[in-house]
Amino acid sequence: MALITLTTDFGLEDEYVGVLKGVILSTYPKATVIDITHQVPPHDITHAAYLFESVYPFFKPGTVHVLVVDPGVGSFRDILAVRAAGQYVIAPDNGVLTLLVANDAVESAVKVTNSQYFLTSVSATFHGRDIFAPVAAQLAQGLDMSRLGPKVGLRNLIRLPNMFPQKEPDGSLLGKIVTMDHFGNLITNLKEKDISQLGPVTHIKKIWVHLGRRTILNVVNSYATVAKGRPLAIIGSRGYLEIAVNCGRAADYFKIGAGAQVKIMVADTPDTN
Amino acid sequence: MALITLTTDFGLEDEYVGVLKGVILSTYPKATVIDITHQVPPHDITHAAYLFESVYPFFKPGTVHVLVVDPGVGSFRDILAVRAAGQYVIAPDNGVLTLLVANDAVESAVKVTNSQYFLTSVSATFHGRDIFAPVAAQLAQGLDMSRLGPKVGLRNLIRLPNMFPQKEPDGSLLGKIVTMDHFGNLITNLKEKDISQLGPVTHIKKIWVHLGRRTILNVVNSYATVAKGRPLAIIGSRGYLEIAVNCGRAADYFKIGAGAQVKIMVADTPDTN
Amino acid sequence: MALITLTTDFGLEDEYVGVLKGVILSTYPKATVIDITHQVPPHDITHAAYLFESVYPFFKPGTVHVLVVDPGVGSFRDILAVRAAGQYVIAPDNGVLTLLVANDAVESAVKVTNSQYFLTSVSATFHGRDIFAPVAAQLAQGLDMSRLGPKVGLRNLIRLPNMFPQKEPDGSLLGKIVTMDHFGNLITNLKEKDISQLGPVTHIKKIWVHLGRRTILNVVNSYATVAKGRPLAIIGSRGYLEIAVNCGRAADYFKIGAGAQVKIMVADTPDTN
Repeated sequence: MALITLTTDFGLEDEYVGVLKGVILSTYPKATVIDITHQVPPHDITHAAYLFESVYPFFKPGTVHVLVVDPGVGSFRDILAVRAAGQYVIAPDNGVLTLLVANDAVESAVKVTNSQYFLTSVSATFHGRDIFAPVAAQLAQGLDMSRLGPKVGLRNLIRLPNMFPQKEPDGSLLGKIVTMDHFGNLITNLKEKDISQLGPVTHIKKIWVHLGRRTILNVVNSYATVAKGRPLAIIGSRGYLEIAVNCGRAADYFKIGAGAQVKIMVADTPDTN
Repeated sequence: MALITLTTDFGLEDEYVGVLKGVILSTYPKATVIDITHQVPPHDITHAAYLFESVYPFFKPGTVHVLVVDPGVGSFRDILAVRAAGQYVIAPDNGVLTLLVANDAVESAVKVTNSQYFLTSVSATFHGRDIFAPVAAQLAQGLDMSRLGPKVGLRNLIRLPNMFPQKEPDGSLLGKIVTMDHFGNLITNLKEKDISQLGPVTHIKKIWVHLGRRTILNVVNSYATVAKGRPLAIIGSRGYLEIAVNCGRAADYFKIGAGAQVKIMVADTPDTN
Repeated sequence: MALITLTTDFGLEDEYVGVLKGVILSTYPKATVIDITHQVPPHDITHAAYLFESVYPFFKPGTVHVLVVDPGVGSFRDILAVRAAGQYVIAPDNGVLTLLVANDAVESAVKVTNSQYFLTSVSATFHGRDIFAPVAAQLAQGLDMSRLGPKVGLRNLIRLPNMFPQKEPDGSLLGKIVTMDHFGNLITNLKEKDISQLGPVTHIKKIWVHLGRRTILNVVNSYATVAKGRPLAIIGSRGYLEIAVNCGRAADYFKIGAGAQVKIMVADTPDTN
């Protein structure tokens, strides 16, 4: 009863996701295939990297994850299989695994080159179907990862730049909005532990969250802490700081989106100035 | 081979649905998880209530339904597990079960409080993943519902107002458009039996359907009863009166949407006036 | 472990796909149900015909495909079950199987009339749920197709017009854009073998692809053959000629869509004129 998850930028309009599942399930009918999402913005490797970081902790050992955001399909980019947190991930070597490597989750990696595990005919445009899917089915059935191709040192994996917040001279931490979710919540790249390293919060010193010229004071524990329609900062389900509006859309409220800077610091509350 | 269905307002862009399935299937790998929809309009409890009413009659006893439209997540709203029509539903106590209760489908209810069945760490923003999903996996595996928490009287469940049509002094029935479906059909809250209670339809007396100042005469048996592009009234697949356009979109034709009033009556045909 | 696939124009907003699965899995809990897509443009039989042609080659014998793009639901159109390439397809007799028949893939066909395999109550608007789904579950469980109704000669199946490219007097081949995919790629109805029949490609004679007044020279082997943002022609994953833009959207670049003419020919390269 192996689980295979799919995270892609294929969308749902076409037959692409369906045929990928056809290949997996025709190879290994007992697999359970789970869609994470197929609506990663086309070719947005960074978006996929953050999103997938929140996925694998909720899957059991042995799960095989197929991660296809692959603008370089058909060119010279490599395809990787990695073992991470007792699970497997098959992904292009284009940086989409940057956060897994940074989190020390990756245990080993191979370059997927052994075409005996691919479909007989490999197209130039759809390696998801022709390579990723049959290889995933093989791993899920228990194939030893080393059979897929030569080992790759983790230092050699391609990494994306500018993924992590920066300490500023004034003691603040400068991060950014990574994505807007379905509810209009703005998810940052600032982790709970980043915030706790800013220094102790007291009844005088609070967390300030700056988005451009707007400020939110305090990180609260639930949406309902503020009135409906009011903004708040909260540690979201990904474990990252999120900017939300109670029963509303923060993206509309603040009129900002992915890429916008977010600065956090611990400082005296306005009352004590 | 227990079935677990998911009805949410999570959308499909993010990892939310995928991780919810990860929790279910990592707990209980033999479950079959079925998406009903994840595109309930955000926080629209009423929409979800009508939609779900059309779902459970098509599932076998023992099915576990997870219904997460939950604007109050993290606040003081309760989470319910109910037994209805031999199946189970896990939902926030926010009125989303109003129609199940009204249909006398609910057999018993408990408040879900026993955290031994939750994920170890419960976030403030994603109870779908942290509470609903693991509890659903437990129920599907045969956990006795009474283990989840204390019994709740059905009279104490929160109910939504204004869900049912009103008898008018002139003998007509005043309902409303509940939703527009993918095909632009306008689904009302007027049931087949509501219509039959208006009085007998004869070759002189017909059913009149009023939408604002527009009128449709007769409830027909198939779209093809009228010419392409023409409007009609029909009992739709939910068992409710629907306004449709043959091979077209009634929502565009009438330029109305959810909330608009619909009045039905049995009266003389125009010819006989 | 039979596979059942679903290809529809139901969209994902409503409960329609979910209840269809409920019927299948409540009848036959061991089925594995796979969504191909539910976003066929409403009532677009031609779109569905091309799309499904790329689906069945990737599924194993015995798979049951449910294909519901059915603007004539509730009228006098027939419902067909066909055996094709060792698999089964249940579809309305409205031309959606045109390409399967043209490819000589269909082995036999029956008209689905035996209501003992339908839901007890059949609505006028949702045969997907009431007929297609329970019949699919029966076929997947091994029901002999002949039990569903009388045999139909393949010549009697309804076929769509204008599906295939035309030879022009000048030796060129005149096809059309069939669809735009999620990435904005423009997929034509010109097959790889159509192109090879235009005559030999040499270092002097190349393939010319004409879209209106724009021309693309050569059919290349990967997106990366051209610079980012530049257009190209390639044999796509469906086995048809596609017009793409490397890391971009051809539909936006050329500002054309489904229905636009595409002419291909082999002729001298500009340099040799």
